[in-house]
Amino acid sequence: MALARFESADVFDEPVERVAAPSQGAALELIRDGVVEGAVVPIESSVEGSISPTLDALALGSRLQIVAETELDVAFTILARPGTTLADVRTVAAYPVAAAQVRGWLDDRLPGTTRYTSASNAAAAEDVVAGHADAAVSTTLAGERLGLAALASGVADHDQAVTRFVLVTRPRQAPPRTGVDRTSLVVLELANEPGSLMRVFAEFATRGVDLTRIESRPTRTGMGTYRFYLDCVGHIDDTAVAEALKALHRTAGRIRFLGSWPAGSPTGAPPPPDEPAAAWLADLKKGTADL
Amino acid sequence: MALARFESADVFDEPVERVAAPSQGAALELIRDGVVEGAVVPIESSVEGSISPTLDALALGSRLQIVAETELDVAFTILARPGTTLADVRTVAAYPVAAAQVRGWLDDRLPGTTRYTSASNAAAAEDVVAGHADAAVSTTLAGERLGLAALASGVADHDQAVTRFVLVTRPRQAPPRTGVDRTSLVVLELANEPGSLMRVFAEFATRGVDLTRIESRPTRTGMGTYRFYLDCVGHIDDTAVAEALKALHRTAGRIRFLGSWPAGSPTGAPPPPDEPAAAWLADLKKGTADL
Amino acid sequence: MALARFESADVFDEPVERVAAPSQGAALELIRDGVVEGAVVPIESSVEGSISPTLDALALGSRLQIVAETELDVAFTILARPGTTLADVRTVAAYPVAAAQVRGWLDDRLPGTTRYTSASNAAAAEDVVAGHADAAVSTTLAGERLGLAALASGVADHDQAVTRFVLVTRPRQAPPRTGVDRTSLVVLELANEPGSLMRVFAEFATRGVDLTRIESRPTRTGMGTYRFYLDCVGHIDDTAVAEALKALHRTAGRIRFLGSWPAGSPTGAPPPPDEPAAAWLADLKKGTADL
Amino acid sequence: MALARFESADVFDEPVERVAAPSQGAALELIRDGVVEGAVVPIESSVEGSISPTLDALALGSRLQIVAETELDVAFTILARPGTTLADVRTVAAYPVAAAQVRGWLDDRLPGTTRYTSASNAAAAEDVVAGHADAAVSTTLAGERLGLAALASGVADHDQAVTRFVLVTRPRQAPPRTGVDRTSLVVLELANEPGSLMRVFAEFATRGVDLTRIESRPTRTGMGTYRFYLDCVGHIDDTAVAEALKALHRTAGRIRFLGSWPAGSPTGAPPPPDEPAAAWLADLKKGTADL
Repeated sequence: MALARFESADVFDEPVERVAAPSQGAALELIRDGVVEGAVVPIESSVEGSISPTLDALALGSRLQIVAETELDVAFTILARPGTTLADVRTVAAYPVAAAQVRGWLDDRLPGTTRYTSASNAAAAEDVVAGHADAAVSTTLAGERLGLAALASGVADHDQAVTRFVLVTRPRQAPPRTGVDRTSLVVLELANEPGSLMRVFAEFATRGVDLTRIESRPTRTGMGTYRFYLDCVGHIDDTAVAEALKALHRTAGRIRFLGSWPAGSPTGAPPPPDEPAAAWLADLKKGTADL
Repeated sequence: MALARFESADVFDEPVERVAAPSQGAALELIRDGVVEGAVVPIESSVEGSISPTLDALALGSRLQIVAETELDVAFTILARPGTTLADVRTVAAYPVAAAQVRGWLDDRLPGTTRYTSASNAAAAEDVVAGHADAAVSTTLAGERLGLAALASGVADHDQAVTRFVLVTRPRQAPPRTGVDRTSLVVLELANEPGSLMRVFAEFATRGVDLTRIESRPTRTGMGTYRFYLDCVGHIDDTAVAEALKALHRTAGRIRFLGSWPAGSPTGAPPPPDEPAAAWLADLKKGTADL
Repeated sequence: MALARFESADVFDEPVERVAAPSQGAALELIRDGVVEGAVVPIESSVEGSISPTLDALALGSRLQIVAETELDVAFTILARPGTTLADVRTVAAYPVAAAQVRGWLDDRLPGTTRYTSASNAAAAEDVVAGHADAAVSTTLAGERLGLAALASGVADHDQAVTRFVLVTRPRQAPPRTGVDRTSLVVLELANEPGSLMRVFAEFATRGVDLTRIESRPTRTGMGTYRFYLDCVGHIDDTAVAEALKALHRTAGRIRFLGSWPAGSPTGAPPPPDEPAAAWLADLKKGTADL
Repeated sequence: MALARFESADVFDEPVERVAAPSQGAALELIRDGVVEGAVVPIESSVEGSISPTLDALALGSRLQIVAETELDVAFTILARPGTTLADVRTVAAYPVAAAQVRGWLDDRLPGTTRYTSASNAAAAEDVVAGHADAAVSTTLAGERLGLAALASGVADHDQAVTRFVLVTRPRQAPPRTGVDRTSLVVLELANEPGSLMRVFAEFATRGVDLTRIESRPTRTGMGTYRFYLDCVGHIDDTAVAEALKALHRTAGRIRFLGSWPAGSPTGAPPPPDEPAAAWLADLKKGTADL
């Protein structure tokens, strides 16, 4: 299995052949083009929230599917060419989401340095090798791979900063329901009627399905038109979730299923079980129910 | 097939052996006791609304099921012993629901007469035979059977008065879905939380299932506790209706299914079809859906 | 103050001049005609549920207003001409709602008697005086007034049977809010759209106003068209109730307010108070709110 | 009136004394500290969506209030020291939101250049003056002020890219209702119950108030806890909006009002008018309403 690794951290257990990609969008394109079978991309940070380029890349182009997630404590390693000291550093390369998570540290320990935007944590290290910057906000792994020295490690402004990474593949059967699952979808285009977003939420609420995240992103076709990303507790094999998906397909406009997969952390109350109501319904249909 | 006929009008086509019953409750008890296979009972009048004794008899005792309905123009025949004229009549026997529908006629044509309560239209005719009353608000059929004369026929205050009769049997598989069906249920006991009745209605509304009738009847366990009778458009084999039933079973308290059957008159917009949403869901589960 | 008393029981404290009326509808017409200032009519029985003639008379004709209620244990007195014994009774006069509440007693103690329909409890006693019946299901007061003897008193099949009576007047300012109030309205004509009844309920539920009774009555313009009677907890001077009324006026079709008055028995959770949210809103408007 | 101008574009008409601020957060702090009376900050881009630092700065610290908005076509000027040509440029300084909007242009016309992150458009120009970069993605005004030359102007990847700027002040009475207004609030902390977010939306939907934007931002207290930013059509002086605000104050947890102000572009259907329902309610309270 070949895997485009946007982030260099080791996320999943399977032995894979790694393929570098310069950005989340590029990583997902490698799947669509058949170059790799999967890609690991960051999707949400506990500090910065949703990672927009990943969301955009999932909504645009052909449908892909999230099949797994992991949440990693986010701590960065500050890399430089061997022999460099903190005092030598004038320019720092960083991926913006990473920069946001070490801003305080940089202001404190590398004040007055200028900041250079890299396309990923790995790219930041490469920018140091290429001489574009004196130091990089990156990872230990990247440092080892490129022969850079660590000026500092475990760097993070927020102690409990966590980033969720997801494994994305081509559309496939979802991994089996575990009982602690997450389902994600995008409302690509909302039915243009008053209250239509409200009705989307009601399809979940009425069925006892807990929404855990709602994100809007502009469609770029004008101010005020959005795509909506929704995460809920549960799995497409949970009847309540399946019913909500069908209802949205019927009424919500154009929606895209992004996958059901085991949640990496507790997510909220699971959807109500289908039994014993389904057994009662079956009895009613046969004419054998007492009530 | 033996059939308890509470009303003597000919309602259904099948040849049946008729068994008389003094009231709707008694007719339904004959089913529960295995004496008859079905009973025809009036359930709603366009003039007087729901016919409470029928509703009560369906909610109490073991579950029975409605399998068919017919709506009949209601017009009564005024019966008396042969030789009697309108001027001779001092007392008139009538079933209260019938009395309510000819009140204006009686006030106009038989002013000053006293009114006698009979247990059914058929019983009213028998009350004339027994000498309890001079005239009966009844049916032509009853008159022929008992040898009474018709003082007037086609009697009805409201020209378009209609009564809906239902055929009730023991629990069984519902008759096949026709696309123009009615489903009926009773919320015997409502979950005792604020807004719980509202949630019952929301289970239908969210799924696009149209409620056509809502009736509350006291449970007789104290002022302010009710059973709720609900009719909706659709059939238990319509996915949307089945989902709503399951949801109510799960959340509403104690509910009883009263049947799905072909509607005798147009009822409202049918529930939304399950396809193509179900096909899309199946494709999603297999991993073959494009969106 | 002149008062049309449909029922002869003493319900309210004020000294009033009593005017007899043959039915609930007639009693309310006396108000509309300016003959009396108020009328006391039964509106709901814990055994038989809503009393339809009263509901109909409130919905049709010009608007009247309920200003008070009382709940009375229902027990009847069986009246006859002096000298009559139970064994002498062949015919019993009764108002149908009363008959329904003593049916068991009559079957047990006066088996085989025939039943006359009277227009009220008072009328039943008068039917005995007029010789139309041997005995009446009526009240002690009626017996005293007409010089009839009591064959039995405290007669009721259900020990805790209760009937709610309301005092109806011309439209007026509602009696002051007490904190334990009832508000009643009729949806005379519902906006003809799917889900419109559901939206009526939602106007109450969203605002935390508890609906305690829902009744549908046919409009008599055809099967399947109804008026809806709704009772809720609270007073028109409760902001939440006032907001719900305004919303219904705007969206529900044609609605009629039937009054707000002190409830005779506990009714459910009161609507949420307007404070402190109103104080916060006022501060926001002035620009002085912290949050 | 002193005004902290985060963006150097001329947004509002009033003559003001300008005070520079290095970031949106810093601009808002100048208001809180009493240094300036207002600040103009970008809040949303039609290309990149919500501008998170502005949202964060409005939610944290003491309450401030939005009083006006303007939407500007976003086109940037590429600045350099006089004498520099496109071919000379090796490094480009840009604010990330700006960089995202000219990415295509830079890749096309300045391929292979490295990118510096500046704190604002104005800061990017200053980074050129300071020698940190050869060129800046900035504004004509900044170029004139600092004596830089324009290598290109009207630069934007998306022709119709628009950014909305808002004028923020200390809490005050909102500007008068115009009929085309926007109201904004933050749910700082949501009541921790299933369906509580759904209920927030329902408070708007039930009252006919159209939500136009929903944004979630992590609270940084752990993965999965969010603040919610909501924009709706209408003004705090629209009764429907005021009622929704009160309801949220009562039930939603901790909410903060961010202001009501004239919308810079059409926003959706206005909330329903309070009249004639309010007039009817007043008549009901006085006892003079016909219905």
